[in-house]
Amino acid sequence: MIIDSHAHYTTAPPELDAWRGRQLGTMNRPTPGSLKLSDDRILESLQAPIARMDALGIDAMIFSPRASGMGHEIGDARASLYWTQLNNDLIARACSLAPTRLVPAGQLPQSPGVSPANCVEEARRCLDDLGFVGFNVNPDVAAGGQPFTPAMSDEWWYPLYEALSDFDVPALIHASATANPALHMNGSHYTSADAAVVFDLCWGDLYDRFPDLKLVVPHGGGSAPFNWNRHRALHVQHGKVPFEERVKKVFFDTAVYDADAMEMLIRKVGPDNIIYASEPFGTAKSTDPETGRPFDETIEFVTGIDWLSPDDRDKIFAGNLLRLYNRIDASRVGRQEVGS
Amino acid sequence: MIIDSHAHYTTAPPELDAWRGRQLGTMNRPTPGSLKLSDDRILESLQAPIARMDALGIDAMIFSPRASGMGHEIGDARASLYWTQLNNDLIARACSLAPTRLVPAGQLPQSPGVSPANCVEEARRCLDDLGFVGFNVNPDVAAGGQPFTPAMSDEWWYPLYEALSDFDVPALIHASATANPALHMNGSHYTSADAAVVFDLCWGDLYDRFPDLKLVVPHGGGSAPFNWNRHRALHVQHGKVPFEERVKKVFFDTAVYDADAMEMLIRKVGPDNIIYASEPFGTAKSTDPETGRPFDETIEFVTGIDWLSPDDRDKIFAGNLLRLYNRIDASRVGRQEVGS
Repeated sequence: MIIDSHAHYTTAPPELDAWRGRQLGTMNRPTPGSLKLSDDRILESLQAPIARMDALGIDAMIFSPRASGMGHEIGDARASLYWTQLNNDLIARACSLAPTRLVPAGQLPQSPGVSPANCVEEARRCLDDLGFVGFNVNPDVAAGGQPFTPAMSDEWWYPLYEALSDFDVPALIHASATANPALHMNGSHYTSADAAVVFDLCWGDLYDRFPDLKLVVPHGGGSAPFNWNRHRALHVQHGKVPFEERVKKVFFDTAVYDADAMEMLIRKVGPDNIIYASEPFGTAKSTDPETGRPFDETIEFVTGIDWLSPDDRDKIFAGNLLRLYNRIDASRVGRQEVGS
Repeated sequence: MIIDSHAHYTTAPPELDAWRGRQLGTMNRPTPGSLKLSDDRILESLQAPIARMDALGIDAMIFSPRASGMGHEIGDARASLYWTQLNNDLIARACSLAPTRLVPAGQLPQSPGVSPANCVEEARRCLDDLGFVGFNVNPDVAAGGQPFTPAMSDEWWYPLYEALSDFDVPALIHASATANPALHMNGSHYTSADAAVVFDLCWGDLYDRFPDLKLVVPHGGGSAPFNWNRHRALHVQHGKVPFEERVKKVFFDTAVYDADAMEMLIRKVGPDNIIYASEPFGTAKSTDPETGRPFDETIEFVTGIDWLSPDDRDKIFAGNLLRLYNRIDASRVGRQEVGS
């Protein structure tokens, strides 16, 4: 079984962004319940993603709101909450229409300068009422602007970490858009945020305080495998717990699009901390003119690693994810075989 | 011959930072000429770097002010200018005391929200009066704060690019400190800035406008080799000139500390666009407990690449640099042999 841990609802019907436009463009803010979409309209929007999963050979995927759309920096905390509830409700409906293929994960009502304690109630609603299995957490709530977001290891985040630990639910640390004109969202901002998060999670004592925290860094950690010894050297110089020890608490997804980067990632991080992701219909959905194949066809990058045992391969494709996201009932997801 | 293209004067006498403290801490700003240091004092501060060069087997290096110390975001444009002049004067003196080993490069009086046209005069002074061969340019003038610095491809930078092209002098695009608490200067900020710069330089038409611009991105491009196909995929999706074509205009230094990252960098970028750097007495000066050797001993990472021809190896160690930094007189640098 292959589960893709990282897919956003990038094909959502335009009514979703139209609601957002009304929310941000008027003083008469719509409430989440005011988005009306038929099941057929939602099913239609899922056809392309599910066809893509079939083509890629992906049995199921964790399906969350569009990362760039989270936009926590825009509007106030109430605007963020309403938009978040709306997106989470829509994810729940979409996943309920394809329950063996799409597993729901949510966004949270983060807001610049507001303690992430405000996220706990919505997280509980998603878990208890909507059957969610994880969350996306934006490490850069103000989108690079001010008030700057404290580093992920800062105590500012502790209320959220306490809740995530209590719920025993993982979080994918995924940035949203950026206000910084020197960054390109897909081309540099996401991966730079990833790299900064990996460094920061390993630099301090966060995992001593929250030993059960399950955080996943997307896109192969941005650049952590490439800069492995840069991290190690700084840990040595500053008398820190060795980087290679700290990093064993961090999980990485495989949304990288080079065979050699995939191999480097799995070799340096180790197969136990890797969960498969190709982020289908995301950044790398175009076709490589050199190979004639879509850039996001990366399953063979994993199966092609000759030193990787079949057991480790299975862990990367599904085992580690099912261990981490323990709210998923493995018997209920995956492509239905004929007669099953 | 091995020339290290990227070394900062991190061992400068404390009188330098004391001057800065007086500059920023008083209304009675000192002028650059007020820093008094004897030749002996400067020579003493160069002993460790030169001993380290000897130990590493580096013949000469391009020597510039401490990157973290540039601090363009602090104080106004006049403060930046005085601090810059002071640092450049000191670099000139240091290099004049070890002229076969240290080759001077400067910082520029960048200031948030101020057109980089203000840098041209100081650049000319450094080239004409001080014999400099290149400059460090900070891509993030406000240190992540506001006013945000336009992307490196933005027309805001054109006056500087026109001057660099006219002078036919290279620039190392190197960030200084950051105000963003989620970033660690050496652990994530520098390399993230590098990655964003590579993306941005290749995304637009900058090199069509400035075909002779010679920009070097440090630290192996931050993460560009690791995320190569991420860049390629986005270029295809958005109908851009192919990334692999655009990137042939960008130069990368080798300040990475993993053998496999070094190999990946040289393989993907190609030997013609790589200039050697270990950034001695910088980020990776500590000793790897696994090997018992300093992390920044990276010459063997290059000589150990079995597919690299001797010619290409020589290009990486000195040839490309001498071609790029054409103000260096190759016959006048390098370790002096006995009797020479």
